[in-house]
Amino acid sequence: MNAATALAPIDTDALVIGAGPVGLYQVFQLGLLGARAHVIDALPRPGGQPVELYPDKLIYDLPGLAACTGQQLTDALLAQIAPFVPVFHFGREAYALRRLSDGRWEVVTHSIHAPGECTLRARAVFIAAGAGAFAPRPLKLPGIEAWQGRQLFYRSPDDPARLPGRRILILGGGQAALDCAVALAQLNRYTVTLAHRREHFQADDEIVAHWRALQGQGRVQFIAGQPVGFEAEGDCLTALRIAGHEGAQCRVALDAVIVLQGLSPRLGPIANWGLALERKQLAVDPERCATGAPGIFAVGDINTYPGKRKLLVCGFHEATLAAWGAWPVLFPGQPNPPLLYTSSSAHLQTLLGAR
Amino acid sequence: MNAATALAPIDTDALVIGAGPVGLYQVFQLGLLGARAHVIDALPRPGGQPVELYPDKLIYDLPGLAACTGQQLTDALLAQIAPFVPVFHFGREAYALRRLSDGRWEVVTHSIHAPGECTLRARAVFIAAGAGAFAPRPLKLPGIEAWQGRQLFYRSPDDPARLPGRRILILGGGQAALDCAVALAQLNRYTVTLAHRREHFQADDEIVAHWRALQGQGRVQFIAGQPVGFEAEGDCLTALRIAGHEGAQCRVALDAVIVLQGLSPRLGPIANWGLALERKQLAVDPERCATGAPGIFAVGDINTYPGKRKLLVCGFHEATLAAWGAWPVLFPGQPNPPLLYTSSSAHLQTLLGAR
Repeated sequence: MNAATALAPIDTDALVIGAGPVGLYQVFQLGLLGARAHVIDALPRPGGQPVELYPDKLIYDLPGLAACTGQQLTDALLAQIAPFVPVFHFGREAYALRRLSDGRWEVVTHSIHAPGECTLRARAVFIAAGAGAFAPRPLKLPGIEAWQGRQLFYRSPDDPARLPGRRILILGGGQAALDCAVALAQLNRYTVTLAHRREHFQADDEIVAHWRALQGQGRVQFIAGQPVGFEAEGDCLTALRIAGHEGAQCRVALDAVIVLQGLSPRLGPIANWGLALERKQLAVDPERCATGAPGIFAVGDINTYPGKRKLLVCGFHEATLAAWGAWPVLFPGQPNPPLLYTSSSAHLQTLLGAR
Repeated sequence: MNAATALAPIDTDALVIGAGPVGLYQVFQLGLLGARAHVIDALPRPGGQPVELYPDKLIYDLPGLAACTGQQLTDALLAQIAPFVPVFHFGREAYALRRLSDGRWEVVTHSIHAPGECTLRARAVFIAAGAGAFAPRPLKLPGIEAWQGRQLFYRSPDDPARLPGRRILILGGGQAALDCAVALAQLNRYTVTLAHRREHFQADDEIVAHWRALQGQGRVQFIAGQPVGFEAEGDCLTALRIAGHEGAQCRVALDAVIVLQGLSPRLGPIANWGLALERKQLAVDPERCATGAPGIFAVGDINTYPGKRKLLVCGFHEATLAAWGAWPVLFPGQPNPPLLYTSSSAHLQTLLGAR
């Protein structure tokens, strides 16, 4: 047991898994009912898929928001839920769920990038995990995972001095890959090779210009192609084979490979929680967005019910129904409150800090 | 048959009844699917209840819109649906619905304030009528309705010369009542009396100041109290009895009474269309927001289904499901299209004029 696992569990009314737009709005609807929420997300920041996968794209179909980016929506939702003071746990994935003897739920989370567990206990759990937790897109070379953490890495090194040698191969063509390649090259201690399927980068102009300058100075090299195999000697990963266009293949000798090919969502441990699944979606009753497990709700892209459309406008509605549906477990023994309107209720306006 | 009824029916893909926020968003979701919509509303302008009943109040619970007035929301929605060029028919109430032999629906509307019918024919009808059509709050004196249109009026006269005499009693204490009282008094041809339960007006400062000035000059008079009865001689309404505080009663001799006591919603003719009702709500299946009549959908506050919450955020979701649910009647024989995203679909962005 490491230090982190020894931490006392965190108790809260509600736990929201996923800090995308629907998870954030879940916090809002819970807040209107007087429930406090903690929120976990595998990503290091709020916003979920709209921020992670298409930060610059405009969303046109949100009612009353003619055209906004995922980041603008996220910022607006964060401001909207601020009065309810949600507690965020970023870079954490929920991997175990179990019911406590008092009927509450315990969710064990682990950190994506560092050892350490964190346990949260809640009366109600709202799974707003979209297509799943975002994880680095893996290098699909069977067997290579044996070197993960020693010579194979899925993030830019916090401390380059701990890299196991000087010959570094970076895979990827986005901002993270370019940032990493330029940062390492500028240390003048590493031989940096970047491999990507073509010499076109999805990164900001500044870092691309930086990269081109280093390339012009012969301080970095680029290989157009994709990894197709690796070589090892005993316990040591020695090279990756990169296949270029027209069948050309080259061998890149290396001490470390850093894979920065973006993130992709995966359902992950949620699939093993014993909740009913339909094509990787959690089946819910549309009246409360409740799963079959009492106190576990699913909202947004991760759920399914007859007529389901994977749209934000539907997820916001689902979060609303789920908050109301959770009332009996959030406030056991208390009668369902009447529906109040934020435009007229002094009580709600006080909660919102609007009066 | 008058001239208006002789007008040719209007043919459209979809007819939306109600130009409140949910009706407007219904137009948007229909537009994304390629369906053209006509919209009717009993009110003279779009916005529905948020604009009519609480124009100045802030709404705090719309996702991503921290605090906005009903008017701001309406303006934003109008801009959002502009690319789909909806055709609005304001000041019209739907009073008859019947199915045509080809499976389409015919809705007969009448004008709230003028004679004349207008008939619309659509493949699908979306009832987004909220709590019903807004109509003038009636004068609740049994039997007095016999004089409506002759000596009893529910709107400020377009042409005061057609009033049946000079002694005018106006009932009400809001903007419309004050506007009418001041306008008639300034013509110097009428004896204007205003009756309201107390001498406090919900109207802008300017018109109230105007009223006070006329009152100071003895050109108008005010009675604090509420109507409790009327007097008639033969075919002629002669007076209203107004009960003030502490049992005082006075008799106001009159030639005409103009009732401007605000608007209130009423379900009206929709209740007689043979659709299943539950406590004045239209029962729908939550999968498509479809009523029992094929091609007739109900969205927003007017519908009900298990778990229903009367919130805008839910109405927007319902409009989305209803648009998709209507696909088979809107585009018979065409397979259901895939769900596209406005953030990534060139087709949708072209429809929206965004590329």
